[in-house]
Amino acid sequence: MFLNKIKFNGVYINESCSTVGKKEFEGPLGNRFDAFEKDEYFGCNSFEEAESEMVRRNLNMLIGKANLSFNDIDVILGGDLINQCAVTSFAFCDTGIPFLGLYGACSTAIEGIICGSSILKNESINRVIASASSHFCASERQYRFPLEYGSIRTPTSQNTVTGTGAFLISKEKAKIKVKSGVVGRIIDKGVTDANNMGAAMACAAVDTITRFFNDNEFTPYDFDIIATGDLGIEGYEIAREAFALQGFDIGNNFTDCGKIIYDPIKQDTHSGGSGCGCVASVLGGHFIKMLNEGTAKNILIVGTGALLNPNSVFQKRSIPAVAHAVHLSTEV
Amino acid sequence: MFLNKIKFNGVYINESCSTVGKKEFEGPLGNRFDAFEKDEYFGCNSFEEAESEMVRRNLNMLIGKANLSFNDIDVILGGDLINQCAVTSFAFCDTGIPFLGLYGACSTAIEGIICGSSILKNESINRVIASASSHFCASERQYRFPLEYGSIRTPTSQNTVTGTGAFLISKEKAKIKVKSGVVGRIIDKGVTDANNMGAAMACAAVDTITRFFNDNEFTPYDFDIIATGDLGIEGYEIAREAFALQGFDIGNNFTDCGKIIYDPIKQDTHSGGSGCGCVASVLGGHFIKMLNEGTAKNILIVGTGALLNPNSVFQKRSIPAVAHAVHLSTEV
Repeated sequence: MFLNKIKFNGVYINESCSTVGKKEFEGPLGNRFDAFEKDEYFGCNSFEEAESEMVRRNLNMLIGKANLSFNDIDVILGGDLINQCAVTSFAFCDTGIPFLGLYGACSTAIEGIICGSSILKNESINRVIASASSHFCASERQYRFPLEYGSIRTPTSQNTVTGTGAFLISKEKAKIKVKSGVVGRIIDKGVTDANNMGAAMACAAVDTITRFFNDNEFTPYDFDIIATGDLGIEGYEIAREAFALQGFDIGNNFTDCGKIIYDPIKQDTHSGGSGCGCVASVLGGHFIKMLNEGTAKNILIVGTGALLNPNSVFQKRSIPAVAHAVHLSTEV
Repeated sequence: MFLNKIKFNGVYINESCSTVGKKEFEGPLGNRFDAFEKDEYFGCNSFEEAESEMVRRNLNMLIGKANLSFNDIDVILGGDLINQCAVTSFAFCDTGIPFLGLYGACSTAIEGIICGSSILKNESINRVIASASSHFCASERQYRFPLEYGSIRTPTSQNTVTGTGAFLISKEKAKIKVKSGVVGRIIDKGVTDANNMGAAMACAAVDTITRFFNDNEFTPYDFDIIATGDLGIEGYEIAREAFALQGFDIGNNFTDCGKIIYDPIKQDTHSGGSGCGCVASVLGGHFIKMLNEGTAKNILIVGTGALLNPNSVFQKRSIPAVAHAVHLSTEV
């Protein structure tokens, strides 16, 4: 049978760092991020350069917080939503750190933590960084319409988060352990509405979460937080229903990063946040702080990605999705 | 200092499989691939679906050759050149195999072998597959012009290979060992000509190859083949010059998959082949056969990727590149 859980032993998140845009800073989690920038260009000439600049700044801040330099890092893993992941390539260009490019759509941050934790098993690799990002303006014009059009958004549409999160993962003991991970399978339930990606991703999240609990090592009640990445309000409700339909008790601590990053009434964000930067910044900021502060001890974080591209939508194809999960714990 | 080599122990390539298009089959390596298809649509409605169909067929053939079924595979790693790697997602959609999406441009196949070999260190992971693909028609219209324009190509331009390669990597003993790998760094030497990607990638290849030999474990003369992925004729010559300039003797067995996959005179392919499918199919077909036949014992295969996107070219940005290397050996 397919592998469910990869168990890690002696793998820690030593440091994390998150940077967001103005809107995310003005949301309910504003003071939980490490930095924000009110200029959506981040001082650059294009939105794509802006996203690279955000990622670069965030990486530098992470390295600084950890008192390290670039050449202390063995491998950096990262990705974004922009075609050919170009934002990440430009961001890491001058670091000289060996680089593995990932594409998991909005699940990339969690894919990076699983991949990074996995390769730490090799003797020669001691410290890796996983990073992921998205930028509202860069994504909107690539996936949907130029912002200048002022298009009306559907009720189930989500707002791409301008944000990034980076995670320093190593074999050096720290408070937060990476206990295990589940690599997602590609699930396609035939959803074709690109303005309702939460629906497409919900099925993948349910599959991955069910696989995580399949071995009965834990129940959802062992977790202080079970959070999906960016199902948004709509997708989150669909996931809840799917769990109920299959008689799976998801407990009381199930939430979604896209649901909590904005104030849906004051901020006009429809179904909530999305994008690689959503789970990356909420985990890198808010949740990691909760683990460090002791307000949470066990977190199951589930990055969710819709594996479409604009062309596949034009070609009337359905939206495959994937979800990767990681169990973080401060318990022995 | 940055990690140079990840050494693997007890990691083997048990099986490989390659599928190409008509032009590649008509080239000098035609009979070295496992399958070819003369219909560039592969019986589908679009070039993107065609590429997915090629990848799906090739995966099925690999699984068949190895006498396995999908649920014997713990993780599949893969990627392609199409925006958001959608081709790979659609191809693996119905397999149910846990999936890690990669983006390394044309270096993706080798990135997959390194990543896959690295994660095999985890006790729970026994068998992985790495796959990568490209399709001439799907790539041309995305990166350059619709084929219908009949655009004139520059002398240094390359021909995207329609092809794919997949590799079954496991801890089960087999003839071909994955001895070590080098994760590439992103190198940007300021090349801005998107019709000369070989030049951009040559610098990355030289960096990675130099790092591989840096520890003096081997010299280039220990290798029967040192092959870059898709520098093409132009990029290959630039790499040779760069080695000469820094006084590094690359030996007599240095070649490039993009240089040998087509007949440059008869096939009008200008600087040669490119695309994820170039190194994937030449390694998966020709070189793996050489190792199995005993005509080569040690191969250093270096996937090369240009990390641009069409937008970054329009924005007049330079072309960062990356190269990942793997040492395959049949020696004890």
